Amino acid sequence: MSVVLCAKQDLKFEPRPMPKIGPRDVLLAMDCVGICGTDIHLWQEGKIGADVLNSPVVLGHEASGVVCDLGRKVKNLQAGDRVVVEPGKFCRDCEMCRRGRYNLCPFMQFHSCPPTDGLLQNYFTHDADMCHKLPDHLTMEEGALCEPLTVGVAAARRAKVKLSSNVLIVGAGPIGIATAIVCQTFGAAKVMVIDKKPDRLEKAAGFGNMTMTLGDRDGREYNETAQKIHECMGCIPDKVFDCHGSQETFKLAIRSTGWGGTCCLVGMASGNFTNFPLMDDVMREVEITANFRYCNDFPSAINIAAHCKYDLSNLISHRYDLEDALSAFETASKQEKGTMKVMIHMLPQEGI
Amino acid sequence: MSVVLCAKQDLKFEPRPMPKIGPRDVLLAMDCVGICGTDIHLWQEGKIGADVLNSPVVLGHEASGVVCDLGRKVKNLQAGDRVVVEPGKFCRDCEMCRRGRYNLCPFMQFHSCPPTDGLLQNYFTHDADMCHKLPDHLTMEEGALCEPLTVGVAAARRAKVKLSSNVLIVGAGPIGIATAIVCQTFGAAKVMVIDKKPDRLEKAAGFGNMTMTLGDRDGREYNETAQKIHECMGCIPDKVFDCHGSQETFKLAIRSTGWGGTCCLVGMASGNFTNFPLMDDVMREVEITANFRYCNDFPSAINIAAHCKYDLSNLISHRYDLEDALSAFETASKQEKGTMKVMIHMLPQEGI
Amino acid sequence: MSVVLCAKQDLKFEPRPMPKIGPRDVLLAMDCVGICGTDIHLWQEGKIGADVLNSPVVLGHEASGVVCDLGRKVKNLQAGDRVVVEPGKFCRDCEMCRRGRYNLCPFMQFHSCPPTDGLLQNYFTHDADMCHKLPDHLTMEEGALCEPLTVGVAAARRAKVKLSSNVLIVGAGPIGIATAIVCQTFGAAKVMVIDKKPDRLEKAAGFGNMTMTLGDRDGREYNETAQKIHECMGCIPDKVFDCHGSQETFKLAIRSTGWGGTCCLVGMASGNFTNFPLMDDVMREVEITANFRYCNDFPSAINIAAHCKYDLSNLISHRYDLEDALSAFETASKQEKGTMKVMIHMLPQEGI
Amino acid sequence: MSVVLCAKQDLKFEPRPMPKIGPRDVLLAMDCVGICGTDIHLWQEGKIGADVLNSPVVLGHEASGVVCDLGRKVKNLQAGDRVVVEPGKFCRDCEMCRRGRYNLCPFMQFHSCPPTDGLLQNYFTHDADMCHKLPDHLTMEEGALCEPLTVGVAAARRAKVKLSSNVLIVGAGPIGIATAIVCQTFGAAKVMVIDKKPDRLEKAAGFGNMTMTLGDRDGREYNETAQKIHECMGCIPDKVFDCHGSQETFKLAIRSTGWGGTCCLVGMASGNFTNFPLMDDVMREVEITANFRYCNDFPSAINIAAHCKYDLSNLISHRYDLEDALSAFETASKQEKGTMKVMIHMLPQEGI
Repeated sequence: MSVVLCAKQDLKFEPRPMPKIGPRDVLLAMDCVGICGTDIHLWQEGKIGADVLNSPVVLGHEASGVVCDLGRKVKNLQAGDRVVVEPGKFCRDCEMCRRGRYNLCPFMQFHSCPPTDGLLQNYFTHDADMCHKLPDHLTMEEGALCEPLTVGVAAARRAKVKLSSNVLIVGAGPIGIATAIVCQTFGAAKVMVIDKKPDRLEKAAGFGNMTMTLGDRDGREYNETAQKIHECMGCIPDKVFDCHGSQETFKLAIRSTGWGGTCCLVGMASGNFTNFPLMDDVMREVEITANFRYCNDFPSAINIAAHCKYDLSNLISHRYDLEDALSAFETASKQEKGTMKVMIHMLPQEGI
Repeated sequence: MSVVLCAKQDLKFEPRPMPKIGPRDVLLAMDCVGICGTDIHLWQEGKIGADVLNSPVVLGHEASGVVCDLGRKVKNLQAGDRVVVEPGKFCRDCEMCRRGRYNLCPFMQFHSCPPTDGLLQNYFTHDADMCHKLPDHLTMEEGALCEPLTVGVAAARRAKVKLSSNVLIVGAGPIGIATAIVCQTFGAAKVMVIDKKPDRLEKAAGFGNMTMTLGDRDGREYNETAQKIHECMGCIPDKVFDCHGSQETFKLAIRSTGWGGTCCLVGMASGNFTNFPLMDDVMREVEITANFRYCNDFPSAINIAAHCKYDLSNLISHRYDLEDALSAFETASKQEKGTMKVMIHMLPQEGI
Repeated sequence: MSVVLCAKQDLKFEPRPMPKIGPRDVLLAMDCVGICGTDIHLWQEGKIGADVLNSPVVLGHEASGVVCDLGRKVKNLQAGDRVVVEPGKFCRDCEMCRRGRYNLCPFMQFHSCPPTDGLLQNYFTHDADMCHKLPDHLTMEEGALCEPLTVGVAAARRAKVKLSSNVLIVGAGPIGIATAIVCQTFGAAKVMVIDKKPDRLEKAAGFGNMTMTLGDRDGREYNETAQKIHECMGCIPDKVFDCHGSQETFKLAIRSTGWGGTCCLVGMASGNFTNFPLMDDVMREVEITANFRYCNDFPSAINIAAHCKYDLSNLISHRYDLEDALSAFETASKQEKGTMKVMIHMLPQEGI
Repeated sequence: MSVVLCAKQDLKFEPRPMPKIGPRDVLLAMDCVGICGTDIHLWQEGKIGADVLNSPVVLGHEASGVVCDLGRKVKNLQAGDRVVVEPGKFCRDCEMCRRGRYNLCPFMQFHSCPPTDGLLQNYFTHDADMCHKLPDHLTMEEGALCEPLTVGVAAARRAKVKLSSNVLIVGAGPIGIATAIVCQTFGAAKVMVIDKKPDRLEKAAGFGNMTMTLGDRDGREYNETAQKIHECMGCIPDKVFDCHGSQETFKLAIRSTGWGGTCCLVGMASGNFTNFPLMDDVMREVEITANFRYCNDFPSAINIAAHCKYDLSNLISHRYDLEDALSAFETASKQEKGTMKVMIHMLPQEGI
């Protein structure tokens, strides 16, 4: 069974044939799949960025599963192994792939991004080397959470966070908190998370971060808000992440970054830039960049999940069984107070 | 005698007392001083970026001179040495200075930037280690041209131009052409310069670059213009420089940059960003950056000047003696056809 | 009063005149000074590397103190501040200083390195920007320990340790353990420390590291020992540090490093390379490097000391008052079982 | 027909069956193949490094050819295209491949390295993306020379040669001269080549390099020779390459490198290090490294070949037709005065 987006706002259950495996593939019985903001956008808008839904597509790309079968050339896994899925198939032949930047492969088929089916299906085949073994003491839920954590790893690497960096994160959703945890692991001196929602900041504080509530008129007077942030942090951040992804938050993130620092846009975003003297910031040698998904970052994220002192499952606010997937999507899209990560269990939940 | 900007649009000759030298200083008899766009802005607007003219200031920061006297601790120079001046005094104590990014020193006193006097004066003292010896076979004019060339070096370094980079440069003024020459020296595979002015592109072509004329409506339809550029280059550039510095050219530069590439703003610029979907570009992992002046880049520029196969003095379109400095400023500001670098000779021109 | 090395093996107490302070200096009342291996070498051999004792010199360069007085231009500190001393005065004018690599300044005057006096004196003046404020909750002993911790920071930076690195450290002395703690903070996946002395490994294990005892014949059969190390770690390390500094340990460190990895020599070392097929390892793209002291690394080390979960003072095995400094040196040189860092208190110990 | 090494010193002509092509392969009619030092070693010793000849192998890995046929998925080439062969098949799945360091792929099958057949055969199939199109104005001989030039590119990248680097190259053979040309293209300020053979230095000088003859006793007194080199260059090199590859030259290269510089071993080498105080150099923050073959470097080398001002074919001292391949190997191994690159033509030489 799979969760298929047939058309804009039209989500259905549909059976899919059992997939065949090639010599380097594994067959996975999927277990936990988290719902991402991009799944919601696609469901509601029928498109995400340049990717438009022209034919039905299975959603979901944050997932863990169990190896059921494997191709004859597979050496890194065996039947019964619990794995985290790194979504996406890259071509392995183009210049980007050869240079070790496979996330920029122009032939990438990214799961759940039309027209490539996603992971909300009971059985799924994938390149064996894109399935990463889950350490024994992590749950399948934590396995699925490794995907957003990997986004944080990719962002922190891209922004060159390092020992003693002072980090500001705009947006206290799952990606924002994941990025904050990663920055702590890199040895950042201070990590502050800001948001408008106090319940989200409370969650962020539980993961060891400084927090500051962004007031209502904030985002309009960038200089003023940036200064308030600097005062609250007790320093000017050299690494700033926009994990919310609106025009307003990105502008604030840029303005808050210190001379010679880096401002990194994390995750999908859109919107025209209007009335913002961007060049003033660029001329302060603020580097503006982003991470487009991830590249060679899953092992690090799994390693953080395995050893960090926090209970990552606290990021999950709601759990649903597969048969209630539509309710899961509704919960995720409503974003009522307290909603963080919504997790779908493809297999019965006992034994989490 | 010195060329002093007393107030907005009020340029005068004024005598200045002979400066005293400290133990690590040299006294220079200034020879050639080029006029920079920032000198013109300051003259016409009475401000440049955040720097406002509140009291009279000597203009000029692209200069060469001859050592007349030196402090007792100076070891790198001797009387009679012909030198290129690296403008600016940094504090040598702050974190930026200690980290080797002295261009970002918050205590920088940059010559000709109010309230710090510039180099259009007959005698000038400076830190000896900021005066770089000119190779014998270079003229004093070429020495003064090393300053804009250094801007190009700093830009190319900041954008990490390397062997086989494909480079696009927007703007065929002195800085644009200087940056193009530097990128060639770094081993770039292709370097293309674009501008609206055919006379400037002709000049750029004379320095070994591909060129393309930017039509009148260009800059409005970024996607279309970017595509035209890619076709003309025969590739998608991975390093793009905006050497013009307007909102329109910067947007075009960003849009023209390939996935995972770098777009670098060179030199001073201003203007609000309006109606530009910046995040679309950032999400392609286009890195947006700038070089704020230069840092440890003069020796490389002098080295390029000494060994490049082009005659740098072709960048000079007009020459004036000190007594005609006001005419020089008028010529530089009018920007009539054929105007490139305007050079002021503080000493008699015989022996160029 | 100061601890002066008058000649090889001839350590004396001598009074020194109260030093004068310049406009950018602070006067410090010294408190804790740790004894380093180089102090011992100098005492016993009368030389260390190329630095030979030709006239009496005060020893000691791992120190904390209290600001008693300050020059009129000092802004970063005030009287009463507790500080960690970053030893060494660099010239601030040479190319290395300007490039942000001041540790390589050819005019460096490094404290306790002949002929520059060290820190084992009651009063000491230093550049204010080389004195780093100690967080309130750290003791003066921990302040002095920040110097060896800084060596570890410099080493980890030089070897580019990063998230998920697998780290091997040869030598479980104070520097080895400090480097291990730093690598953990950088997000290393595994850190293993090896030594011949079980008591030192026990100490290393207490700081959260894997350990392996190096047998007696080890160091002779490099391939065999390297393989044993890889089996014990469960992986091949990509970052290896020799914190012991003998020919034998350095060879073992090099051989244990994986293809494309980095082997870093930490601290002073000497000895001819004999009978070692170095080129075999270099051709595996193993990068061989070292950190010469430190550069801009104290703030990071102090930050680690302030936030790490370990009690750094466990590195101290012996404490002496100033009047017993000679006994301190004897203890440090004997290296009996259990000896780690030997700390000298210049001020009464109450209030540790 | 192919040139097969059947056993140590036993080189024969043997027919090989026409190879079949897969969907991503091209079939090449080979044209020019240069003889490399490793071919000679393998022929004479029956082994090269850890690779031992256990069964017959075709020699040759510096080659150009013409596309005769192509698999159905090949898009980058068409029949009749003249190409440079990048030797070696990497697995595309392991961590090294995914990280963009495919030269370190543990599953690499490198052509002419036992047991993988090399390129001295009339027909040869290869991954289409490892065949790089030759610009029209380059000859097939220059195409084959792109392989040693690529070694130079890889070395210069690995050593981070950059604008204004001062470069010393030990060894004026084809690899040494290729590396020198590449360093010039990167914008090095000075490039000096040293060797014992005046005829080779004369060749190196013809490619625009400074040269110095290494005397007979040189290589023994490293300090003295290093100082002579520094005097002759007029500076201390920050990037040094050993392109000869003996213990003596590598030691000299290391000792000649300035504080904080990089010493890079280029190409295959062997020999035990004896009586060399390596740690003294490492402690000067001299980084010791090597390039193991190349990775993503062919396009840059072809670009240099296409645009450099030198006639690369001057590197060729001898030309042979395929039927005289054995004479070619004899000439290459004798290394009589004037011998540089020996080139074998698989197709008739008219039209070079």
